[in-house]
Amino acid sequence: MRQSKLFTKTIKDAPKDEVSVNAQLLIKAGFVDKLMAGVYSYLPLGLLTLRKINDVVREEMNAIDGQEILMPALSPKELWDKTGRWEDPGTEVMFQFKGRSDKELGLGWTHEEVVTPLVQKFVKSYKDLPVAVYQIQDKFRNEPRAKSGLMRGIEFSMKDLYSFHTTEEDMWDYYEKSKQAYLNVFNRCGLDAKIVEASGGAFSKYSHEFQVLTEYGEDTVFYCSKCDFAQNSEISKVKAGDKCPKCGESISEGKAIEVGNIFPLKTKYSSAFKFKYTAENGKEQDVIMGCYGIGPSRVMGSVVEIHHDDKGMIWPEEIAPFKVHLLFLGKDDKIKAAAEKLYLGLNEAGIEVLFDDRDVSAGVKLNDSDLIGLPYRIVVSEKTLAEDSVELKKRADEKVDLVELKKVVKMLSA
Amino acid sequence: MRQSKLFTKTIKDAPKDEVSVNAQLLIKAGFVDKLMAGVYSYLPLGLLTLRKINDVVREEMNAIDGQEILMPALSPKELWDKTGRWEDPGTEVMFQFKGRSDKELGLGWTHEEVVTPLVQKFVKSYKDLPVAVYQIQDKFRNEPRAKSGLMRGIEFSMKDLYSFHTTEEDMWDYYEKSKQAYLNVFNRCGLDAKIVEASGGAFSKYSHEFQVLTEYGEDTVFYCSKCDFAQNSEISKVKAGDKCPKCGESISEGKAIEVGNIFPLKTKYSSAFKFKYTAENGKEQDVIMGCYGIGPSRVMGSVVEIHHDDKGMIWPEEIAPFKVHLLFLGKDDKIKAAAEKLYLGLNEAGIEVLFDDRDVSAGVKLNDSDLIGLPYRIVVSEKTLAEDSVELKKRADEKVDLVELKKVVKMLSA
Repeated sequence: MRQSKLFTKTIKDAPKDEVSVNAQLLIKAGFVDKLMAGVYSYLPLGLLTLRKINDVVREEMNAIDGQEILMPALSPKELWDKTGRWEDPGTEVMFQFKGRSDKELGLGWTHEEVVTPLVQKFVKSYKDLPVAVYQIQDKFRNEPRAKSGLMRGIEFSMKDLYSFHTTEEDMWDYYEKSKQAYLNVFNRCGLDAKIVEASGGAFSKYSHEFQVLTEYGEDTVFYCSKCDFAQNSEISKVKAGDKCPKCGESISEGKAIEVGNIFPLKTKYSSAFKFKYTAENGKEQDVIMGCYGIGPSRVMGSVVEIHHDDKGMIWPEEIAPFKVHLLFLGKDDKIKAAAEKLYLGLNEAGIEVLFDDRDVSAGVKLNDSDLIGLPYRIVVSEKTLAEDSVELKKRADEKVDLVELKKVVKMLSA
Repeated sequence: MRQSKLFTKTIKDAPKDEVSVNAQLLIKAGFVDKLMAGVYSYLPLGLLTLRKINDVVREEMNAIDGQEILMPALSPKELWDKTGRWEDPGTEVMFQFKGRSDKELGLGWTHEEVVTPLVQKFVKSYKDLPVAVYQIQDKFRNEPRAKSGLMRGIEFSMKDLYSFHTTEEDMWDYYEKSKQAYLNVFNRCGLDAKIVEASGGAFSKYSHEFQVLTEYGEDTVFYCSKCDFAQNSEISKVKAGDKCPKCGESISEGKAIEVGNIFPLKTKYSSAFKFKYTAENGKEQDVIMGCYGIGPSRVMGSVVEIHHDDKGMIWPEEIAPFKVHLLFLGKDDKIKAAAEKLYLGLNEAGIEVLFDDRDVSAGVKLNDSDLIGLPYRIVVSEKTLAEDSVELKKRADEKVDLVELKKVVKMLSA
């Protein structure tokens, strides 16, 4: 894409009321715009990024037999009355209002009350199970502390998967599979997540969270650096320096960002909706459920919190809006022509490239490029032209090797 | 995809409260589920279809330089006060409620009040214009008559594009370009749309609608069958049998479904937000706007209203959830093995195929296949096996020729 065609521009100063690093950088770089606290618009670069995160999530959910659906944001009070969640947590979390004929409606902050009776319509027998369905959809929460950019939204994107099983054993098998799928998602998005025991909140007795250790985190985690023991401080009975109850090693304390969570719902929602299946022996039994959440917009915010330097963001390759930022520095027509040729060549080679074809100074181009933070930068200048080559730069903490891109660039600039 | 893995099943009887053909067939075929009047969930087959429609819309909007963004559904009262639309049409159309600290919020039923100040942040000079931005996003309307399935939703998907120009002339140029892009969209979705003059409603003085003539239509259109004269009955001063004011031919009357509309907004919203640009002569001038809507879910409903027979739906090739329905009839292992081989082969050839691998009767398979209505059906049976071939059937009103698919099938069944 030609940067001159992009209707957004980088912004020099982030809004003063934005305290989080992710919102400051994403707004300055023109990825998102703030409509009100906790509510953002995704601009072209931000939407490309969000969609790449969605694609990663979708691939990993399909790989564990998730069937994608799309449920509405609106749902009627009756469904939430079945589980008591219309009243508790009620308006503390849910936006509730009236439609025509005084019909009471709410905006979905989670979807157990919608998905359970939906799957119930089709699943009658043990032969129909297990089933896993998921959606990627905007959720709404009447959030009192929407001060963390994309990390804590009032309107935010969510992938919620719900699994349905004949036995607890089968649910636990799937639960373990989902853990690996989640680690795959986070790994592909450049996040090194730890699986942490936590409370189940309004969903279940307990849960597992996926936490990324970082000084910018809102949560506190106690973890063992030798084994996989890790607990959220909300439920932890150990403290830093204690012996790990699993392996005896010393416990560490760290700040962390929660990027996903999974809940063994068991029969909490199936029993509320009387969702039973006929077992092989002919008897009716409660369906066993689990639910599994990742917020793609929260992942986007987390990636920025963790991958940035004082000049801007540094996007992991798989979710960057473009792979390459192509710049030309200098006013000479020959330089621009060489860059134009390279732009067409990279496009033809199927490499996603943002081409800064604007008539602005070298300083502006380099600063904007640092701020936007694409994985690779190719610079065409008088110097590179004299050497019959280009300058190819990789952002510091990328692991992917450059061989393929170098080949293409060499071929193109020859 | 294997049909045995699909968690949905076809349903024998549509819900009694569904009067529209589109909702009846889409629910019976397991494409959508009704949560409440005007609010539907998209099940796997329905979501695949909706996403194909979105892709068609996206391609055609990108082709007229639309830049895709994603705005929130929530927005604050202040923005709507600028145009008076918080009060009029107000709650007649908009869901309004309070968040934390009694902040008044509404759900977007259109996005002029959000997009205008958003684009204003980046567009300052004539050099920044024209700009066209669009989104594909769920909208909400407090609809009193939600009785037409996907045709009139309370929550429904919408592609809304907004264009910004220096002059009315430039806006009209873009308006004409958008007409062609819209006709491309509808044509690719199997809809033969007519451009009809109409009132502008809450948006502008007048507008153009895209109407598909059909006995199932809610609107009445007066049109000339010789020239392009066409008016919605709401504003028309002619009636059936009158002479066409453009060419003198006799005017016809027909029922029609509205599948899209475009509005010359001019300065209505830019002036409300004081959105001006600096012209070449240094003077400040109001930005000129247009807006352009297509509802992908409404398109999906319209396609079903228009393309069906007494057995089920008949999907146009470009938006069908799968291209081919592969069935085997008979209990013989050899028949199943031949179908399995063909399934793998079609998948490898990159042809989207739904494989009915279920252990059910031939009658059930054929009825379900008629109901789901994929463009092509391949049947493997004792008879075809004896002839060392397969039966390949094309639904009646498809225009695309079979040469390519026949080649693949021939190759695979050899």
